[in-house]
Amino acid sequence: MVMPSAAGSVLLTDLYQLSMLQAYHDAGMAGPASFELFSRRLPPGRDFLLAAGLEQVLQWLEGLQFTPDEIDWLRGTGRFTPAFLESLAQLRFTGDVWALPEGTVCFADEPWLRVSAPLPEAQLVESRVLNLMHLQTVVASKAARSVLAAPGKLLVDFGLRRAHGAEAGLLSARASYLAGFAGTATVLAGAQFGIPVFGTMAHSFIQAHASEETAFLDFARSQPNHVTLLIDTYDTEAAARKVVALAPRLAAEGIRIQGVRLDSGDLAALARRVRAILDAGGLREVTLFASGGLDEDSVAALLAAGAPIDGFGIGTRMNTSADAPYLDCAYKLVAYEGVPRRKRSAGKATWAGAKQVWRRRDAQGRLLEDTIALQGEPQEGEPLLRQVMRGGRRTAPPEDLARSREHARRELASLPLPGGGMEVNVSPGLRRLAAELDARPA
Amino acid sequence: MVMPSAAGSVLLTDLYQLSMLQAYHDAGMAGPASFELFSRRLPPGRDFLLAAGLEQVLQWLEGLQFTPDEIDWLRGTGRFTPAFLESLAQLRFTGDVWALPEGTVCFADEPWLRVSAPLPEAQLVESRVLNLMHLQTVVASKAARSVLAAPGKLLVDFGLRRAHGAEAGLLSARASYLAGFAGTATVLAGAQFGIPVFGTMAHSFIQAHASEETAFLDFARSQPNHVTLLIDTYDTEAAARKVVALAPRLAAEGIRIQGVRLDSGDLAALARRVRAILDAGGLREVTLFASGGLDEDSVAALLAAGAPIDGFGIGTRMNTSADAPYLDCAYKLVAYEGVPRRKRSAGKATWAGAKQVWRRRDAQGRLLEDTIALQGEPQEGEPLLRQVMRGGRRTAPPEDLARSREHARRELASLPLPGGGMEVNVSPGLRRLAAELDARPA
Repeated sequence: MVMPSAAGSVLLTDLYQLSMLQAYHDAGMAGPASFELFSRRLPPGRDFLLAAGLEQVLQWLEGLQFTPDEIDWLRGTGRFTPAFLESLAQLRFTGDVWALPEGTVCFADEPWLRVSAPLPEAQLVESRVLNLMHLQTVVASKAARSVLAAPGKLLVDFGLRRAHGAEAGLLSARASYLAGFAGTATVLAGAQFGIPVFGTMAHSFIQAHASEETAFLDFARSQPNHVTLLIDTYDTEAAARKVVALAPRLAAEGIRIQGVRLDSGDLAALARRVRAILDAGGLREVTLFASGGLDEDSVAALLAAGAPIDGFGIGTRMNTSADAPYLDCAYKLVAYEGVPRRKRSAGKATWAGAKQVWRRRDAQGRLLEDTIALQGEPQEGEPLLRQVMRGGRRTAPPEDLARSREHARRELASLPLPGGGMEVNVSPGLRRLAAELDARPA
Repeated sequence: MVMPSAAGSVLLTDLYQLSMLQAYHDAGMAGPASFELFSRRLPPGRDFLLAAGLEQVLQWLEGLQFTPDEIDWLRGTGRFTPAFLESLAQLRFTGDVWALPEGTVCFADEPWLRVSAPLPEAQLVESRVLNLMHLQTVVASKAARSVLAAPGKLLVDFGLRRAHGAEAGLLSARASYLAGFAGTATVLAGAQFGIPVFGTMAHSFIQAHASEETAFLDFARSQPNHVTLLIDTYDTEAAARKVVALAPRLAAEGIRIQGVRLDSGDLAALARRVRAILDAGGLREVTLFASGGLDEDSVAALLAAGAPIDGFGIGTRMNTSADAPYLDCAYKLVAYEGVPRRKRSAGKATWAGAKQVWRRRDAQGRLLEDTIALQGEPQEGEPLLRQVMRGGRRTAPPEDLARSREHARRELASLPLPGGGMEVNVSPGLRRLAAELDARPA
């Protein structure tokens, strides 16, 4: 069976979407529906989210269609009627999308995105839209914490190997770059998104050589413009002294050692000793790069301890958002055929109606307060959700990743100072609507 | 630029692999190398891992090649020589692979897989082999805990939406099925792997209808062979009474209500009350299915509390392995050109030499002890690592997923009883080799 890649297949969805679509088809329910994607609450210890992943959502919506092979497979399940399967062959996404620009700071209950489309379309896209935006938002929100913890330092995504699969590896490189990382080790992220790619060497490279010196020399001569040497394979300080000894020999060949990497041990103590060895050896320009199980907390601790480290490779804990590997986000129906809808399930009640988020800032541009209001309800401030798709077509060309990254930088700079606080209000209109709906029988 | 999907691209790798390959090329280092993939330790609170993902690794190794567009992109970086780029165009994986069969229980330091190949090939594949096996092993190991916690219950993967991207969604359906789940909600996993697919309806389906009754009737008539009704959108007990009232009407149309789903609230209390309402209404055959933020601990608690629940939808916490979203696994050089290699980095020292794991069981088949030994070192018991690839070709056709799942079932049944304990020994040969290598200068 010829199928699109998992990333592009419309069958990358939950079965219930298709069962519901069959039922909507049978009942002739194809009126206009609006769904909103938002996070009910922030993970413990987190103050904000950084919205990311919109570009991949829009690409996926533009390309949404069932292939003949996919429809044949669905036919074989015996769950669907011929008329319905025929309708799937014609199905495209024809709806409107409103969304936060990528790199926008947001908070609990604020919609990241609203889809307004005929009910079957808006329903069908739930699983993959959530899957795509959740991944990048969870990673960008985590990566932003390292960016805030290490101002001025070179941060590089090192997490491909323990990211959860191919797309997580690729898109977490994108999400962390969006959040302010300088780049990634993942080559494909360079090829697909133009993200700067960084790399040094592995311990296996050192071990495969007869000696550490030979490994350093071989690497430096082979990559004369990118000489960062890994020095913790055997004895870190001894390796630093070898670097000092090799530097003049390489300099004579026109090769400059740019940096050394530490990947294990007491990074703060080793960094100080290695810095001293390099400085005493006349290698003040050689930078120190650290890696190995790092996250924003360990980076902050290293910097607070005065460790003379110039850059950090941050991988697994960032890519998997290890302290909060998922967000409590949901994609919920807020209106159907012009009637606002509200779910009342215990602990999962939602605000009805299509919404807009309004943001107010102080004179320095810092966030003061947000108000979640009904779409069209007059509010002060700047509206955050923008229309990005109309009738299944983008309202503008794809946003440049560098521009989104610059937006994220300004957003992170505008966060309230620690302890400053940030209010998220719910408008009178939203509260009134919820009360009205609660008063009606289910 | 035309590129393969991220899942298939050889550029889904870390830049340093390619930098090292350039250096190996320049130094003429293409001798035989062996790398092993293993986990240094188990996450807190975990007793075992369940190896998974081998099939995808073998597929990827078989298809490994650089496309002309990929080589052009690499040329454009200015980091690589023309002769090296030409060699990449010819590069295929020609090595041997030994591995634990999928579904094998394993412990810290035991290799999941060994790659023996010319150094550049064995080096290059590190990032993606780790990425693929880590994902499925972390998810299968997590899912197995729910399987052990809920014997005889129907467990279904519900996690696509918050899995970390497309491949994580698809392959965690596979990994959880391998571990003993009955199936998944992810349609593509049915299409690609033949995994049974399950689904009910979403709250939005109920909300889009004028009333809960209408929604139930529409769904039942549309999916008459798969009638599981979601009853927590407004008032769970009221909805259960509606189910009782609708049952005779649907029965008259030849439609049987198979189950109801609870997705919020105090699941144990609600399950008891709903069970009582259904039983009193003559619906003893209607099953109760629960979902909503579940994992092995909450499932165990519900069952310990005697909640009359027949099946569980387990999603986000399983798919993201929320309590342990990554494993401390690594892919390490153990021999080059016949010489064993050992890394000594603080906290990350590895055992040198190609290894085999030997397992001893008691008369009932329960695990007694494992011994990690040098490949070829005589040991008692059953050797766990099997050769699955020779010279870049599989030694046997792909293993059937159902057979791997049956293997996993037997493996989980053979775990030591709680408190029984399990020893993992390191052979005298391995210890001797490590001591010899440590005595040599680096």
